[in-house]
Amino acid sequence: MSQFAVQVLGASSAAPAHGRNQSAQLLLVNGRQYLIDCGEGTQHQFFRFKIRPFRLNHIFISHLHGDHYLGLVGLLSTLHLQKREHELTVYGPEGLEEIVAVNLKYSETELNFPIRFVVTDHTAPQELLRDDRLTIRSFPLSHRVPTTGFVFKEHPKPYRIIKEKLPENILLQEIALFKQGKDVLHEDGSVKYAAAEHTLPPKRSRQFAYCSDTRYLPEIVPHLSDTDLLYHEATFGVEMAARAAETFHSTAQEAAQIATQSGVRRLMIGHYSTRYRDLQPLLEEAQAVFPETQLALEGEITEIPEL
Amino acid sequence: MSQFAVQVLGASSAAPAHGRNQSAQLLLVNGRQYLIDCGEGTQHQFFRFKIRPFRLNHIFISHLHGDHYLGLVGLLSTLHLQKREHELTVYGPEGLEEIVAVNLKYSETELNFPIRFVVTDHTAPQELLRDDRLTIRSFPLSHRVPTTGFVFKEHPKPYRIIKEKLPENILLQEIALFKQGKDVLHEDGSVKYAAAEHTLPPKRSRQFAYCSDTRYLPEIVPHLSDTDLLYHEATFGVEMAARAAETFHSTAQEAAQIATQSGVRRLMIGHYSTRYRDLQPLLEEAQAVFPETQLALEGEITEIPEL
Repeated sequence: MSQFAVQVLGASSAAPAHGRNQSAQLLLVNGRQYLIDCGEGTQHQFFRFKIRPFRLNHIFISHLHGDHYLGLVGLLSTLHLQKREHELTVYGPEGLEEIVAVNLKYSETELNFPIRFVVTDHTAPQELLRDDRLTIRSFPLSHRVPTTGFVFKEHPKPYRIIKEKLPENILLQEIALFKQGKDVLHEDGSVKYAAAEHTLPPKRSRQFAYCSDTRYLPEIVPHLSDTDLLYHEATFGVEMAARAAETFHSTAQEAAQIATQSGVRRLMIGHYSTRYRDLQPLLEEAQAVFPETQLALEGEITEIPEL
Repeated sequence: MSQFAVQVLGASSAAPAHGRNQSAQLLLVNGRQYLIDCGEGTQHQFFRFKIRPFRLNHIFISHLHGDHYLGLVGLLSTLHLQKREHELTVYGPEGLEEIVAVNLKYSETELNFPIRFVVTDHTAPQELLRDDRLTIRSFPLSHRVPTTGFVFKEHPKPYRIIKEKLPENILLQEIALFKQGKDVLHEDGSVKYAAAEHTLPPKRSRQFAYCSDTRYLPEIVPHLSDTDLLYHEATFGVEMAARAAETFHSTAQEAAQIATQSGVRRLMIGHYSTRYRDLQPLLEEAQAVFPETQLALEGEITEIPEL
């Protein structure tokens, strides 16, 4: 069973409060680490949760409000001190490279690892990365500054061969056909082995989507189709709907509406306003619309099973 | 009894480790707060130790290594969200204003309080501020980038009037003379009331000095004369003396030597390398040279009594 899981490192909005750190999440895919947002103190959370960033090669920054990126320069400095040598790619809005460069200039730091910046497009969907396991895309959100969401999707998987039914003397190239879900044919075109008898359908390609920060934005629904776990910001409760609209944030109810419209399997809400010490009302508000809702809680790992 | 105290908010060097935050200290003078260095996560420490920065008007940054200033932009953003309106002055090396400006530019934040930057001079001593209680000076340290130390000194205090001995019908202007330690004279120049009989000498003008980061630098001794509490970095123990020299840091022994040469009353060491989980060896190394040494420990407040 391969791992596909999300670990929350911070779920507070704006200022840290009630012991909660600012936005940061780690997507864990078979030990590989994809960091999404990097609020101030993210490196402290790595230390706190005993996470060694040895398999961190890609960092995704949704937008340039401090609570989503101010931990980046510190994390880079620590990776530098840890003698990291392999390349790191940072995806984020225009300006992030300049911010990092100005900091490194005055500390007279020349990182001993290559760092590559990829500018995200907040006006249109974009494929950011396709590695051997995942395709990662960004799509526009609507906040007060250029902001994108991110979708992390596993590649399509092979059909699963039923080992007990595997014919003796089957050839490797015939197995390859099974993995594609294709029948093995005789030379005359008749069926030698039917795929349907010897294989099971592929396991799901799991998908995680991250939407923070944004006003209620039904336009994102098409980007969220086939999502196992949706993280959607829920800065406020409905009682603060006017404030949410004014600040381009969402309520817990709106996050749940997006989850419902997108047909996702599970919703995780977070980016809580500092006004909420108790998060239960936000959870209940979302669950009233979309029962499969959970709170983003620091340190917790949400496993997405390979069905 | 008026307060003059130092609260440590962080004492780790380089990376946060062993639950220790990076450099930040608050000087508390009758409720006023002077922040010295502002490592990443300093605002989290404000929250943790329930410090409300209502009386924070001056921030002093020793140098532009990330572990000494990366918390500044986040703190400014939080002060902004808290609707601060009164001016804040930030003292630090050339470049700090640019770093703050670049961050605020991309977050499209216009702070709702005025911020004033004062560039410190790392080549010569400088008076930074003289308010109604303190004179604050910087002086050069020797580190890998431009760095200054800071000295915070109370103004000279009045002679203390012995109330029981206060003559009846004494005039206000005669009391004013007592406060300056002067005799009250008759018109013919003869002594009416001798100051020595009616007053006690002034209480000490307390002084706190902050030296981080620096190699062992005896040239700073003259700036430290008459210091009640000296904070001096002690990144390493003597067993790492070569590494200390190479990185322009001090050992605990060297910090204690500076304390001895300066004749300070008390030494506080800090800025511990992440290699030291247990700080006791660093403390003992310093105490062997200068017994009145204490460790900088997060949250702890060191009161400097008004003798």
